[in-house]
Amino acid sequence: MSRAWILKSRPAGMPGPDNIALVDLPSQPLAEGQIRVANRWLSVDPYMRGRMNDVKSYVPPFQIGEPLQGGAVGEVIESANPAFAVGDKVLHMAGWRDEAVVGPEMMPQKLPALGVPDETFLHNMGLTGGTAYFGLLRCAAAQPGDIVFVSAAAGAVGSAVVQIAKLKGMTVIGSAGGPDKVAFVKELGADHCIDYKAGPVLPQLMAAAPKGIDVYFDNVGGEHLDAAFATARQNARFAICGMIDVYNDGKPQEMKYLIRTIPARIMMRGFIYTDYMAEFPVWQQEMAGWVTSGQMKARTTVMDGLDSTLDAFLGLFSGANTGKMLVRL
Amino acid sequence: MSRAWILKSRPAGMPGPDNIALVDLPSQPLAEGQIRVANRWLSVDPYMRGRMNDVKSYVPPFQIGEPLQGGAVGEVIESANPAFAVGDKVLHMAGWRDEAVVGPEMMPQKLPALGVPDETFLHNMGLTGGTAYFGLLRCAAAQPGDIVFVSAAAGAVGSAVVQIAKLKGMTVIGSAGGPDKVAFVKELGADHCIDYKAGPVLPQLMAAAPKGIDVYFDNVGGEHLDAAFATARQNARFAICGMIDVYNDGKPQEMKYLIRTIPARIMMRGFIYTDYMAEFPVWQQEMAGWVTSGQMKARTTVMDGLDSTLDAFLGLFSGANTGKMLVRL
Repeated sequence: MSRAWILKSRPAGMPGPDNIALVDLPSQPLAEGQIRVANRWLSVDPYMRGRMNDVKSYVPPFQIGEPLQGGAVGEVIESANPAFAVGDKVLHMAGWRDEAVVGPEMMPQKLPALGVPDETFLHNMGLTGGTAYFGLLRCAAAQPGDIVFVSAAAGAVGSAVVQIAKLKGMTVIGSAGGPDKVAFVKELGADHCIDYKAGPVLPQLMAAAPKGIDVYFDNVGGEHLDAAFATARQNARFAICGMIDVYNDGKPQEMKYLIRTIPARIMMRGFIYTDYMAEFPVWQQEMAGWVTSGQMKARTTVMDGLDSTLDAFLGLFSGANTGKMLVRL
Repeated sequence: MSRAWILKSRPAGMPGPDNIALVDLPSQPLAEGQIRVANRWLSVDPYMRGRMNDVKSYVPPFQIGEPLQGGAVGEVIESANPAFAVGDKVLHMAGWRDEAVVGPEMMPQKLPALGVPDETFLHNMGLTGGTAYFGLLRCAAAQPGDIVFVSAAAGAVGSAVVQIAKLKGMTVIGSAGGPDKVAFVKELGADHCIDYKAGPVLPQLMAAAPKGIDVYFDNVGGEHLDAAFATARQNARFAICGMIDVYNDGKPQEMKYLIRTIPARIMMRGFIYTDYMAEFPVWQQEMAGWVTSGQMKARTTVMDGLDSTLDAFLGLFSGANTGKMLVRL
């Protein structure tokens, strides 16, 4: 017997008990290639809301009557796959349940023995840390001495960008909304942090970076991106990770400074984490060193017990979390 | 004695005889490092209007009382520079005059012996051809088999892009304004050419490129650029050469499809011709082969005599030219 959150119906607006329910599922025998995993940590993320709709996106929608999915870390308790032994710790996508039957479609990966806490594979050692690392160092090819601007700098990805950039000898200017988040970004080591809720971005960025910027790590698009075009120095590089400003409205982005692409020879490029899959071992090795030495921090909000998963998820949208939201089983 | 067009006063609007005049200049002896050149071909270009204003831009403004400058090809008739001999053909920036004293600041270059007409160094073998070549093949890294979209495809740069792309085995979709220009672009070998004056760009581009585009060579920005974002295929590359749509108004560009940068992993980069100076010999060798074999064409409008230079220049703005405007001395 296992317990899992299933999608009962597609929500309009925020999901509630009519849409998502915790149910008992009969234990099923393993097919060849599958493993049974006792989950220890579950990740809840804003992108999961999109998968509750019946709309094609980066990832396919959740299916009605089926368990929800998401990043999870657990321990193998039964194996019908020679690559995994009982007792192995694995990262996989069969979250939202206490015990998971994990086939190849759930992308199980053994946690490398790097001496870091298991749950870090759901943030700094996982998607958010890898997105920060590869976006900054590969997509934007940021170098020591560069002046780096990062939006949503208090977020899970942005706060990793701030720390990695400082560890690599860069000057960092963050942007965040409100004094608490600004203070957090400075605690992480940012040289400056602008408060986009306190006034327009461009004059604040010009004051924080009077010589201009070499790198922009974009999580939001819109006004921040335009300010980056305005202040870009020669051969500036923009890594485009997200444009959360425009996910919900369909309004055009008004770009006044896009034309600086030519005189400043700006290079702008979109990426996602898995584009750099071949380099995951290199990144995880370096990141593990920073995590174990305490040079790389992550704020997490932890809720306990499978029953709390829906509240944890809904909390993402009501501001209940600071940093990465996790559920501990 | 030589004759030169000098800037008498800075024009408001189009320049006239009060602003620009043809005057006699006394012959001056050569200083060390200078050469005296009898000009044979002069280039007139729209960017020269900007240099008549007292405003810093890519290039410094023309000085009042001094001869105007511009690309020119001529023959050395006296030399105080050991690198140049009498009889050498040179490309340099001391145009707008019949006889020029050319020092290093005018960037004289001996025409390489490539068997092409001298005046081609003012178009396909020069700035416009090089801009097309490097923008397409280096900045956008276009490959055989790519689907290439190019705006202002009937212009000097755009028409070179169309031809180079076809010579390299690409599918080419041009955009031009009006049936005559569209017909010209098709004559150059483009697979399709949309008429942006006949309707919105995006639906026309989607019909011409149902599979999407791999490369966009941007000369105009605005609606064309947004349509390129909308139709970009995976790993599409945009070379940003110009944004003539926004040179004169200061209005923001409304970008609805910029967000496709992320899922399509679009790379957008600005460039100018001289970024690739180290590769000029390689390019000129390949281009000369296409020019001498007749595979690379250029439309030119030729006016005769130094006296016609101002009319030639003004003709650029009244549509008197088809393709590259040249003055023959």
